[in-house]
Order: sequence, then structure tokens, then C-alpha cells
Amino acid sequence: MIIQKSDNPRIGSFDPENYSFGDHFIDHMIICEYENGQWGEPKLMPYGPLPFSPANMAFNYGQACFEGMKAYKDKNGDVFLFRPEKNFERINKSATRLAMPEVPEEAFMQGLKVLIDADRDWVPHGEGKSLYIRPLIFATEEALKARISTKYMFAIVASPAKSYYSAPVSVKISDYYSRASSGGVGFAKAAGNYAASFYPTKLANEEGYEQIIWTDDATHENFEESGTMNVFVRINDTIYTPATSDKILDGVTRDSFIQLAKKRGIEVVVGDVKVKDVIAAHERGELKEVWGVGTAVVTSVFEAIGYKDKKYDLPKLSAEESYALTLQRDLVAIQTNNAEDPFGWRVLVEKNILETV
Amino acid sequence: MIIQKSDNPRIGSFDPENYSFGDHFIDHMIICEYENGQWGEPKLMPYGPLPFSPANMAFNYGQACFEGMKAYKDKNGDVFLFRPEKNFERINKSATRLAMPEVPEEAFMQGLKVLIDADRDWVPHGEGKSLYIRPLIFATEEALKARISTKYMFAIVASPAKSYYSAPVSVKISDYYSRASSGGVGFAKAAGNYAASFYPTKLANEEGYEQIIWTDDATHENFEESGTMNVFVRINDTIYTPATSDKILDGVTRDSFIQLAKKRGIEVVVGDVKVKDVIAAHERGELKEVWGVGTAVVTSVFEAIGYKDKKYDLPKLSAEESYALTLQRDLVAIQTNNAEDPFGWRVLVEKNILETV
Ligand SMILES: Cc1ncc(COP(=O)(O)O)c(C=O)c1O
Ligand SMILES: Cc1ncc(COP(=O)(O)O)c(C=O)c1O
Repeated sequence: MIIQKSDNPRIGSFDPENYSFGDHFIDHMIICEYENGQWGEPKLMPYGPLPFSPANMAFNYGQACFEGMKAYKDKNGDVFLFRPEKNFERINKSATRLAMPEVPEEAFMQGLKVLIDADRDWVPHGEGKSLYIRPLIFATEEALKARISTKYMFAIVASPAKSYYSAPVSVKISDYYSRASSGGVGFAKAAGNYAASFYPTKLANEEGYEQIIWTDDATHENFEESGTMNVFVRINDTIYTPATSDKILDGVTRDSFIQLAKKRGIEVVVGDVKVKDVIAAHERGELKEVWGVGTAVVTSVFEAIGYKDKKYDLPKLSAEESYALTLQRDLVAIQTNNAEDPFGWRVLVEKNILETV
Repeated sequence: MIIQKSDNPRIGSFDPENYSFGDHFIDHMIICEYENGQWGEPKLMPYGPLPFSPANMAFNYGQACFEGMKAYKDKNGDVFLFRPEKNFERINKSATRLAMPEVPEEAFMQGLKVLIDADRDWVPHGEGKSLYIRPLIFATEEALKARISTKYMFAIVASPAKSYYSAPVSVKISDYYSRASSGGVGFAKAAGNYAASFYPTKLANEEGYEQIIWTDDATHENFEESGTMNVFVRINDTIYTPATSDKILDGVTRDSFIQLAKKRGIEVVVGDVKVKDVIAAHERGELKEVWGVGTAVVTSVFEAIGYKDKKYDLPKLSAEESYALTLQRDLVAIQTNNAEDPFGWRVLVEKNILETV
């Protein structure tokens, strides 16, 4: 790995007690370029702009995918990643679907560790705090023909984060817009999926909803995801979540929630979650909770669900009664090294890795 | 408009008799930036890279859309655009669906004319030759949260072009992959739509097909588009093409072909084009032609269609018998100022516009 440390670190002016997400990028980034059919040597370098023409293929044809993951600092100052191998596998699944080259494991894993070690002081410690890490791959060839790019950049950038949301939110079940097609790219963290979701989300916001519960584009009868999260529904004491498919992102948080729920002896059913069954359960008084899960917020609790001009309020459960919040606590305790790690999910970021690469 | 001419024009080293598409970008480009809720002043400047961070939102969330259009030089050296107002309308439809700000008409139209006038010598003259022009809008804010960007760039870049394809191609009717969802962004020239199409196209290429005929994602029973073109089917002497919808791009060439066909008295039916009807017509010997249309190639004639492990050969019609080629000739004659322009489609690029802006 090529190491080019910043001459002008900004960490001195970062106040870990007073920032908001996305205000600051850490001092360094990793980049690695693909050309002539192969990846070059990864490089640690100061975070900042690089030269790209408006004819860059990523701007034109959207060959770009990313990951979202976090590093957590425990009370001793040790820093941990959470299941990074899942993100590594997923970025390559996304890349393949977008006809982009897979990133080598070394560039991804070594890149993460070197970057976080170099900018260890940027990882905040404390309730809900973490370093949000963004690995991404995007096309970099300059060309105007709609075809597969021959050049790419893999990059890792990062920013200190807090939990996104605090308060419970209202969500709207989509009966018109969709985020994924059968035989499409919904399962990939493809850049274009997010752009496509913004306008419907804006319309939902204007109706007073924070997010959309996406449904299948053909019938709008089945839950898919919520916002940029996987979705869980609790009816009585059973948890339901849609099976992953080519339309649904295989979320790391979703998978972790399923395993943690089973460990607690909670029944989990993975399969179709029908809008009509959810509404019927609400009418019977059996719909206890609906929530979204994802790396950014861990859990987003829903207080109401909108469907076709009706708004269905959900019960307000205590932190102990709520499966959503109980599983969130279980997960966060593992992520932040405040609990045993029975699944082997934590990965320590060793100190002074720079000296070994 | 801010005018900053190149100190190092490359036009001198461009050989208009010997180039291939995408080898060269013209000397200048237009850029215009959006910030604080408004577009700044457009600028003509030398073509080249600009600084963007890997945390740029376009790379991460794919808010990017584009247009593809051409300028043609006639035998007197006059340069014409073709129906540019259609591209202007469409880029703003795309932008709206991707929650991006609309580009002002002046930046788009004036930008086109100033750029082409400044680089008039780059517009090649001759059979099939043109200047391919790429207006695009993309997000430029640096942020890692999946939300609407607050900053954008509108740019126009261009490259001398020839016809893409010459020989007739084989196409495969998709029975698994799709490019658009109901309630999605298929009708927009969204960057992500193209990235999503590359992998299925690569698989089709490996099976010996040059392009895919996209079908609806729910049933795969209806034609949508072909590759990055709209599709026409001729059964006996009637032409069929799918109606535009939220899954189908409203192509300028498609619209022009429909008008030109009607002018010639050819019957045109706009509506569902069912795979089974096309195959049945082939079996009855009534399927005369299937072809794609788009700005880049005008017409791509199909010699065979693959469907579920069968390959259906299409008749070889002469240039006179073929509706595809007849309508192509009609269109090209108008575009290149070799025929009357009964529809008012040509727009002259006036000389010395720079002096007036
Ligand atoms: C569309 C979508 N669904 C679900 C998720 C949740 O995945 P994960 O738990 O791996 O963060 C994400 C990413 O955060 C996402 O973008
Ligand atoms: C998906 C798609 N369909 C159809 C077309 C044809 O549109 P137009 O005739 O306006 O070039 C294009 C663009 O070329 C396209 O990208």
C-alpha cells in the first residue's frame, strides 16, 4: 500500500462533543484505481477532491455502488468494525450486477484497517457515536457511449456519525412508486437506486411521512423495504420480515436482528409480508410494532403507518416491551464491546497497522 | 454567460476523415452550477477535468441524468440541431423524477448554441457524421447521507460521431432481466438505468446477441425498448410500437419515426406489443421487420430475434422495401438539410453567437 499522510491534519479542529453527521470528513481516504483489466496498488492519501471530467462515465451511466458501515470506539479506546466481511461480499455482489470489477479482499479489508488506524482519533466514543465509513466503486473512464467502463476507482471515505433519527417516525406504504424491479438491481447498493427513491420520498414528506414502505412494483401488495432500511413487523409476539430477493437488499442489520431474535427465543418468520395482513392485524389489535433496520440508525421505530389516505397509529411500547428496542440494545452492546460477542461479529482494528503494510 | 476560450485548442490535430466516436472531445464545454436554491451563470470553458471528491453525491447516490443529441453540418457548412426543445423538456422531466432542479431554458439552449458555435470546426460533415452532444446534470454536494443534494452541475460536452453500428444485429427478448419498474425511473434518462442494463447486455452478448429487447418486469410478455433505443415491429405493412409510459423513454427518434411514417401513409399502431403476437406473426410469415431507433444510430436493423433458446431469423429486405431504412432516410435527409423540413424540426446554429451573449 502507498502511504501518503496529510501535511495538514484537521483533527485538531474537530470537537467530538459537538458535530453533526456529515459536517466533517476524516483526514485521509483510501483510493485504488482499476485500469487495463486490473487493480493498482491501494493508496492512503489526504481526503479531498480529485480531477474528473463531466464526461466521466459514472456521472453519465451511473456505474457506481457503495457500502455503509461503522467503526465503534469502546471505553478503553479500542476500535472495532462490525461484520466487515458482509460489506465486502455485498459490494462485490453489487459490482457484479453493475458489470464492474470486484474489489480485491486485500484492498477492501486492509484499506479499512489502515484508514481507521491512521485516523483513529476521529472515531468518536459515546452513546450512539461511531465513525461512518463509506467504501465505494465508481466508473472513471471518459466516454460518451453507453457501455461498460474500462476504468474504475475504489475509494473509502469516512465521517464521524451520530444516530440519524431519535424520535419515532410515520411511514407511508407506497401504492404507486417503487424502488426495485424484478430482474433489476434492487438487491444491489447501486447508486441509482437512491436517486430513484428521493422524489417519492419527498412527496411522502409533503404528506407528513418521514419514509416510504416500499412495496413490489407489480401489485404493491407486499412489503419490500422501508426507506433505506429493511423492515420488520411484529404481530402479537412473532416477527415477520420479507425474504431477500433480487429486489431487496440483504442488510447486515437485518441478518443480525434475525439471529439476535432467535437467540432470545423470539419467533421469526422470513417470507411475504402482505400489506393486507398487516392492516388486518392492526384492525384486530395485534399489530404491535413495525420498524426499519440499517447500519445508519440501527433501528427506526414507526409510530404510524399511512396507507391509502388512512393513518394507522401503532401502540407505544416501553423500551422493555419493544422487540425493536430490545434487539437494538442487544446489537449495539455487541457493536460497542459492551457485551460478549457470541457470533464473532466484532473485528478489532489493530494499532500501528501502518507499520506493517 | 461567462466566456473563457481555450488557450490550447486541439482542433488542429483532429482529422475529420479519420476518427472514431469518443476518441476526441471538442475544445470547450459548458458548465453551470446550482447552489443555494439557484443556478449560477453558465460558462463556456476549455473541456477538461474539474475537482470532485469521492464523497460527491453523484458517485454515491446517482442523482444524475443526461441527454443525447446531435448537430449536423450541411454541404454549405451550416450547422443544425434537431428538435433540441424535446431534449430540453426531457432533461427536466428526468431531473424532476430524480429530485434535481430543472435547468433553465436559457442555460440549455443558449449553452448548446454557444458551445457549438465556438467549436463549429469540430462538427464533421459527411455521410453519417455528426457532433454528438451530451448535456447532463449531476449532484455535486459532498455528503454521505442518502438525501437530495443541495448542489448540482449542469454541463454540456461533445464529441464528433459516426454511426454506431453498420451491420444488422441479433437481439434477445429478455425473459428474466428488466430495465424499468412500474412507478420507477425507466422513462427518465437517469444515469443508473444504464448501469443496470450493462450486465444483462453482457450476458446476452455472451450468447451471441448484440442487444436485449427489454420486456415488462412483471410478466416479460410485453416489449418495452431495445438496448438504449425505442423499438418498432412491422407485421405485414403495419408498424407497432409500445406506448410511452413510466417505464419507457419518450424518444425523439421514435416520435419522429411515427410522424414520418404517418406522412408516408404507413399505418402506425401505438400500444402493447406482445411477445407472443410477434412470435406468432413470425410463424405466419408476417413479421417483416423489427428495429430500434435512437439518436445515436438513428436505426438499428435486427436480423434475428432470440426468445427462450430459439432464434427467429427476420427477412432481408432491400433498402426500398424496408420501412426502417426508408424512414431512416427520410429522417436523416431532414436532419442534414438535404430535404424540406415540413415539421419545423431543424434549428440553425447561428454564427458568431458568442458576440451576442
Ligand atoms: C436499500 C437499503 N436497504 C437496507 C439497508 C440496510 O442494510 P445494512 O443493515 O447492511 O446497513 C440499506 C443500507 O443501509 C439500504 O440502503
Ligand atoms: C433507454 C433509451 N431509450 C430510447 C432512446 C432513444 O431516444 P432518442 O430517440 O431521443 O435518442 C434512448 C436514447 O438514445 C435511450 O437511452
